[in-house]
Amino acid sequence: MADQNSHPILERHLFGPGPTNAYPEATAALGLPLLGHLDPEFLRILDDTCADLRTAWGTTNKRTLPLSATGSAGMEAAFVNTVGPGDVAVIAVNGLFGERMCDVAARAGAEVVRVDHEWGTPVDAQKVADAHPNPKVIAAVHAETSTGVRSDMAALGALKGDALLIADAVTSIGGIELCADEWGIDVGYAGTQKCLGVAPGLAPFTISDRGFERRIEKPQSWYLDLGMLGGYVGEATGGRTYHHTAPVAMVRSLHAGLKRVLAEGLENVAARHYAAGQALQDGLQEMGLELFAQDGFRLPELTTVKVPEGADSAKVRGYLLSEYNIEIGAGAGKFASTVWRIGLMGPNARPDSVALLLAAIKDALAATK
Amino acid sequence: MADQNSHPILERHLFGPGPTNAYPEATAALGLPLLGHLDPEFLRILDDTCADLRTAWGTTNKRTLPLSATGSAGMEAAFVNTVGPGDVAVIAVNGLFGERMCDVAARAGAEVVRVDHEWGTPVDAQKVADAHPNPKVIAAVHAETSTGVRSDMAALGALKGDALLIADAVTSIGGIELCADEWGIDVGYAGTQKCLGVAPGLAPFTISDRGFERRIEKPQSWYLDLGMLGGYVGEATGGRTYHHTAPVAMVRSLHAGLKRVLAEGLENVAARHYAAGQALQDGLQEMGLELFAQDGFRLPELTTVKVPEGADSAKVRGYLLSEYNIEIGAGAGKFASTVWRIGLMGPNARPDSVALLLAAIKDALAATK
Repeated sequence: MADQNSHPILERHLFGPGPTNAYPEATAALGLPLLGHLDPEFLRILDDTCADLRTAWGTTNKRTLPLSATGSAGMEAAFVNTVGPGDVAVIAVNGLFGERMCDVAARAGAEVVRVDHEWGTPVDAQKVADAHPNPKVIAAVHAETSTGVRSDMAALGALKGDALLIADAVTSIGGIELCADEWGIDVGYAGTQKCLGVAPGLAPFTISDRGFERRIEKPQSWYLDLGMLGGYVGEATGGRTYHHTAPVAMVRSLHAGLKRVLAEGLENVAARHYAAGQALQDGLQEMGLELFAQDGFRLPELTTVKVPEGADSAKVRGYLLSEYNIEIGAGAGKFASTVWRIGLMGPNARPDSVALLLAAIKDALAATK
Repeated sequence: MADQNSHPILERHLFGPGPTNAYPEATAALGLPLLGHLDPEFLRILDDTCADLRTAWGTTNKRTLPLSATGSAGMEAAFVNTVGPGDVAVIAVNGLFGERMCDVAARAGAEVVRVDHEWGTPVDAQKVADAHPNPKVIAAVHAETSTGVRSDMAALGALKGDALLIADAVTSIGGIELCADEWGIDVGYAGTQKCLGVAPGLAPFTISDRGFERRIEKPQSWYLDLGMLGGYVGEATGGRTYHHTAPVAMVRSLHAGLKRVLAEGLENVAARHYAAGQALQDGLQEMGLELFAQDGFRLPELTTVKVPEGADSAKVRGYLLSEYNIEIGAGAGKFASTVWRIGLMGPNARPDSVALLLAAIKDALAATK
């Protein structure tokens, strides 16, 4: 079993649905000497991170912070802080993460009204708004990581009425336009390991004053209790209240990644993601492959493409990994073996990634026939 | 506001209650190129991490894994997976983390029977066992981070009867003897940022087959649902089921930290912590200071000492930070300004740390008078 202890250092091209490769600044920050979670210098870095997250979210919400867990915990935080037994949650389902929302909301005791859409299509805002006359929350995924589809959150915001709008921005933040305040998003959660180009481990989170006022006062989760978290981060003005030990290395890495993204500028970053995604999607179609997501709603940062007739999904992915150190993703749910998911996120949203991917996929399809 | 963006790289001596400074191997691993969370090589590293965690816990539990959040989420996982409405949880409270357990268990719907002890004293196993005839779980903190006290988990295990025993080992794992199986611990959670010498961000967790069989089948937390997590890690034998994106950089850092600790040997590491703590406690008493934790139950890795008459706790801590780059902790709860908490954990459990601390504290007490 000596072999078990040898772990080679591999340099993968992470072209799957996430994690992506990290910006070098974000990786370098992980190696800095640690600071205590109550160190004045760490609190300054944390406050600065929250400020930059506000910019990334397009919000002025004072309660904007990195939760100390991955994006899925962000989803859980969104629901446990807003719905309890008897509250109606209308949830748009057009992929795996909408499905997950239903599970998470039901565990919080909510009465879930799910509004199903065909996978690969965007959310129909009117259909969602018509699903219930008086929900406490309406929830949808901005960028469905399972299907590569973008939905119009502004349309949902315009129709939300008295409800709180919850948005999953895990795969959109830092990659495509995101305007939480302008679109009427009350509660948003995201991940670090997609377009922000930081290792997975934190969930950037934001909640409006309106959302916070209507929150569950004592949510079932102590760890994700926004009222308690606010004493340590986000709304703290004077003294800090210890809640839990913040993951200081990951926060510092997010801080560095955000600085890199904001120095380039959110519009420029979005343009870079758009150009890379468009080039990849054009190239794949030129190779005769068929895209999965509905035209007009395709995410540039995450391309879904149908596995062509005669190709074996796992063999192709294995070949890419072993021959090119390239990871691409299988499909999600019932499309596991019939769709590939190819991400060009953060530092990977570049022409060199596109060229490499197209050449490697062409070779893999031929070699594994 | 330009100043907000300048963040000096400080090299702190983290001698507080945690996080501690990390082992260099653990820091270096954070900087390695990222792997996907489903990459075969990452899964090998994850399995190896789980194997090493079993050694650190003193268990053969197949469900031993790093949860993707900090130690406090480990506490939440322990309760939401074992107790629901109507279940009785007997909780020993002899410090802040016992208090927290009561809050967390109550949010899971449990009927909490708290057994209070004076802070600074260990848990009285007989008193806890006598508190209720038929609890579903009994819970206690092995090493109370708030008071610096060790409690006898084996005594609780011997008296637990039909109940499941939950143990908080956040500040004990990798620092003092921990024998989960031998002591009858059914559910244990820990942290990475104390004696394991890894940055905060993961919660090493273990649950026995007995505990797993009696678990809540669909816990209120999706993120911490051990039944679902087991498909990805710990009990997976063949294919893996995606649950959430693992924090791959942090897992790799824990992997490296565990290798370092196990190469030195758990007994040697414990002896090193013991020697450092004893030397510090002797030295502080020689300086005329009074220890807070009850004699005979003092943790070597976390020393609590009373702030002497005439000294200003915050001033002394501020002086240590500004003059020596040393962080020590304030007291917890009502002892915030009357007790200091001084940690010598992981790489800091060394004679040089002791010598530096004693010299610096002596200077600080004189200089801030």
